[in-house]
Amino acid sequence: MGDSFKDLCQKLKRLPGLGMRSSERIALHLLLEKRELARELSDALTVALDQVRACPVCGNMTEGEGRCVICSDERRIRDQLCIVEHVPDLISMERTGCFQGLYHVLHGKLSPLRGISPGDLNFSTLQERMAMDGFKEIILALPNDVEAEATCHYIVEEIIGKRDVSISRIGFGLPSGGSILYADSTTLRNALESRRKYS
Amino acid sequence: MGDSFKDLCQKLKRLPGLGMRSSERIALHLLLEKRELARELSDALTVALDQVRACPVCGNMTEGEGRCVICSDERRIRDQLCIVEHVPDLISMERTGCFQGLYHVLHGKLSPLRGISPGDLNFSTLQERMAMDGFKEIILALPNDVEAEATCHYIVEEIIGKRDVSISRIGFGLPSGGSILYADSTTLRNALESRRKYS
Repeated sequence: MGDSFKDLCQKLKRLPGLGMRSSERIALHLLLEKRELARELSDALTVALDQVRACPVCGNMTEGEGRCVICSDERRIRDQLCIVEHVPDLISMERTGCFQGLYHVLHGKLSPLRGISPGDLNFSTLQERMAMDGFKEIILALPNDVEAEATCHYIVEEIIGKRDVSISRIGFGLPSGGSILYADSTTLRNALESRRKYS
Repeated sequence: MGDSFKDLCQKLKRLPGLGMRSSERIALHLLLEKRELARELSDALTVALDQVRACPVCGNMTEGEGRCVICSDERRIRDQLCIVEHVPDLISMERTGCFQGLYHVLHGKLSPLRGISPGDLNFSTLQERMAMDGFKEIILALPNDVEAEATCHYIVEEIIGKRDVSISRIGFGLPSGGSILYADSTTLRNALESRRKYS
């Protein structure tokens, strides 16, 4: 197999959720069976790169200049801030319809192992917003793992600091439809720790 | 969400193995977190489109002009032909090291439901090869489903016809490491039908 094919596979492999096999399969599909789609995809990428940007305030996706639709929506509750790792997490939160405040997208989480330090994440604007925007409540909607744990700790200690603000982290436990039988021990431990009084 | 983002997601969704969620995730990753990779990917696609082609003889992938590495390899057994659906299937067959003949890649299978008729598949060169190349054995290495069944039938009736050649289809049954307990009924029926005398 030649170089330009290998090169394309290598780049596809760096996309989230794709491994070696699926990258090869996609590359072959594009180059042998759907060459028109391959051209369209390359063009669509170039156009979207030109149009789509991170919101300068919160890091959400936005097209064109200026703030994103959520930051510029005057009906949102402006003293509640929900911090998420990635934009798809924000989209999932929005889908619940349960949160009316503003967001801040970190675009990752701290990870010494993968070489991701505070300078790599969207922390500088978070710091500015903390100083300027008068939030009353911060909700940390980061995943249930060690790296997210460290990231929450950093945000609370280094960014929020001694400010008078209510901070919470989303609940962990049995997922909707989850059974005790198939739950792993960490999930069950989380569920026990976060038990609530039966009323 | 804007148009250029939606457009990119629509195109990604047409790739094999990607759904709406994974397309969105990849698009956001490329546009917000890895813009450099997005540019590289668009370029790599353009370069590969220019370099990579289907082999004019068998439909396998090849870079530059002329026949693919398998068709031009003089050590291959030239009177055995293995017919596969896609190039990754050919790669999997090669990985076994058990087949030393030539290949023919159809780039799909017949499907009235999905509107795929004989004219959409790589049949015309197969017809030429059948007339010219003097194959003694044809192995149909197509998947175990109804569309592949119909495709095999078409090849045998319409393309091979009355030629004096041995035709076989790869065996179906319990996969390596498979248990009877978790096998579905179709697999078990196939396994029973293709039972072999214990020696």
